[in-house]
Amino acid sequence: MADLKIAIDCMGGDFGPSVVIPAVHQSLLKHQNSSSKFKSNSALGLNAELSSSPTGILNVYFNLFGNEAGILSELSKSKILNHPNISIIQSEDDVLMTDKPLTALKKKKRSSMRLALESVRDGRSHACVSAGNTGALMAVARFILKMLPGIERPAIISAIPTLKDSSVYLLDLGANIDCDEKRLFQFAVMGNVLCKSIDGIQNPKIGLLNVGEEEMKGSERLKITAKLLEEHPGLNYCGFVEANQIFTGDYHVIVTDGFTGNSVLKASEGLSEFLTTKLKLAFQRNWWTKWIAIFAKPVINIFKHEINPERYNGACFIGLRGVVVKSHGGANVNATFFAIEEAISQAIKKVPSRIRETLESNK
Amino acid sequence: MADLKIAIDCMGGDFGPSVVIPAVHQSLLKHQNSSSKFKSNSALGLNAELSSSPTGILNVYFNLFGNEAGILSELSKSKILNHPNISIIQSEDDVLMTDKPLTALKKKKRSSMRLALESVRDGRSHACVSAGNTGALMAVARFILKMLPGIERPAIISAIPTLKDSSVYLLDLGANIDCDEKRLFQFAVMGNVLCKSIDGIQNPKIGLLNVGEEEMKGSERLKITAKLLEEHPGLNYCGFVEANQIFTGDYHVIVTDGFTGNSVLKASEGLSEFLTTKLKLAFQRNWWTKWIAIFAKPVINIFKHEINPERYNGACFIGLRGVVVKSHGGANVNATFFAIEEAISQAIKKVPSRIRETLESNK
Repeated sequence: MADLKIAIDCMGGDFGPSVVIPAVHQSLLKHQNSSSKFKSNSALGLNAELSSSPTGILNVYFNLFGNEAGILSELSKSKILNHPNISIIQSEDDVLMTDKPLTALKKKKRSSMRLALESVRDGRSHACVSAGNTGALMAVARFILKMLPGIERPAIISAIPTLKDSSVYLLDLGANIDCDEKRLFQFAVMGNVLCKSIDGIQNPKIGLLNVGEEEMKGSERLKITAKLLEEHPGLNYCGFVEANQIFTGDYHVIVTDGFTGNSVLKASEGLSEFLTTKLKLAFQRNWWTKWIAIFAKPVINIFKHEINPERYNGACFIGLRGVVVKSHGGANVNATFFAIEEAISQAIKKVPSRIRETLESNK
Repeated sequence: MADLKIAIDCMGGDFGPSVVIPAVHQSLLKHQNSSSKFKSNSALGLNAELSSSPTGILNVYFNLFGNEAGILSELSKSKILNHPNISIIQSEDDVLMTDKPLTALKKKKRSSMRLALESVRDGRSHACVSAGNTGALMAVARFILKMLPGIERPAIISAIPTLKDSSVYLLDLGANIDCDEKRLFQFAVMGNVLCKSIDGIQNPKIGLLNVGEEEMKGSERLKITAKLLEEHPGLNYCGFVEANQIFTGDYHVIVTDGFTGNSVLKASEGLSEFLTTKLKLAFQRNWWTKWIAIFAKPVINIFKHEINPERYNGACFIGLRGVVVKSHGGANVNATFFAIEEAISQAIKKVPSRIRETLESNK
């Protein structure tokens, strides 16, 4: 049995501890093998312990960073006050959603976000979850945890549901607006490792997002990236893909620059909202459709569950020397729970070390 | 009463005349004021006639370009053989979906696509509709029709449904992979004119797609574009928008580069397919859900009609000296009909001349 410690920035997001604490509770309930004693270990010791328990039987501990009074009040509401697997670390600042990255970095050195990241750096936690300001989280994470050798900036990666059983990992989702071929190549390497580690896919199919599948399509940069990916023996590069293929499940990893990835992701959120609203309106049209809606509700609920974005909450900042999961700012309890689970999975699979090994073996 | 002549490339798309001819028939039925005599006019004469009939009471004529035998066979099936409003112009080549733009341009000088565009250039038609190879259509249209003064390349623009009553015009959808600030600015001007002319919006709200709404977000190029748009008195520029806002209906025109626009549009197509498939599967789950599906079908049909992509078929190549509407390669009869209607609308509103006037008044 291994110990796993997750650092939670309780002050990020729109709802702070009132959402984070019930999600922590949900996670504690899931991982019921928790021991009653809260230990502190060095990073090395923790890694050794985790290695000895690849089956995933875990004691999960939480280091909660933020306003102690607020956290205690929510722990009390959730009836997990004095839970042995929970520690509280008082912070002195909150990073606001409106703060510039530089403000968070230079002026808020005792913020819950920064303290949570420092606890990962110092080996007191295996992973950090925050729903805070994305730009600030990236800047602080990069400063505190540092990048893996050869990687300049983190990429944001997330699993997207598809029509097949598997998800597809899409990256970058907004951390890197301009990407040269080297960076796009690194995205493919990192996505490949994440997909292998988390989803257990042996040889993930990798696609490079473009405006057409034909080799002649797209910018010079994309053509050079395609060549780099083709030539790499460790990658199962399958060519250019168009954005409609994100959802078909024919690919496991799709690589693009942060501007396009962010736009595609947000457009998908907007369209989901548009379509579910249109569906709701169709059922509210008149008394007859409202009557049908009563019967159809269980089916619509199945549909909503299937496409529930909460299940896909938790984008990862990949390329850092530690696991950092970004939860959506507006995430509810259930969505936050999924972000915590994502952090746990990545910590168990030691994604950063695996990426490092892959990058080193490529030299 | 005015005469309007539409050039149709019957050989483009996946289905050729078998889809195009029934769509032409549908359009003929809609515009029933057709006279029985087919006339030929110069561009000037035609424009003068159209000007005299702003109410839209039209005689619509079709110049059909392609394989005469194939077209005649389909006209016969649709029972509009020898229809007085139809002329057939035999072509000698077909532009294939796999043809490079240069091949279409240099080696297929008697293709149905090119002849249709030449008929617009020579004033024998007011607009051209083609479901052919996008790259080829753009290259040939640019060569034959030429660009409006000050515009280097066409942009692809299309109306997208939103949660409000109005659509939003999104451009560029793939014609310009790399766009500098000048080009993005021109997109805004052209989108503004199209929105005013076609939808009658007095002062369209214009947004510039970015990864965040804050002024500090995005590339230098976007910041410069924002400044150009802000400073222009004739444009109602409303700032950066994120891609989820495409569907809210809060904007009338959203401007982006062709790579992002194309990716957002295709991702939306893919997600629509994903969500409607998931909805279908939820209703096919077991005998009970299948039973509910029988009752819910009329409601689901309302929903499907509301979001029907066929209604939004017909992207326009804007910035040319003539109206060119690109129908989807896989468009069915109904979708092709909507593309023809789009061409008719743009020809009536003389969109290219209006853009020209606006650009000239900006000098």
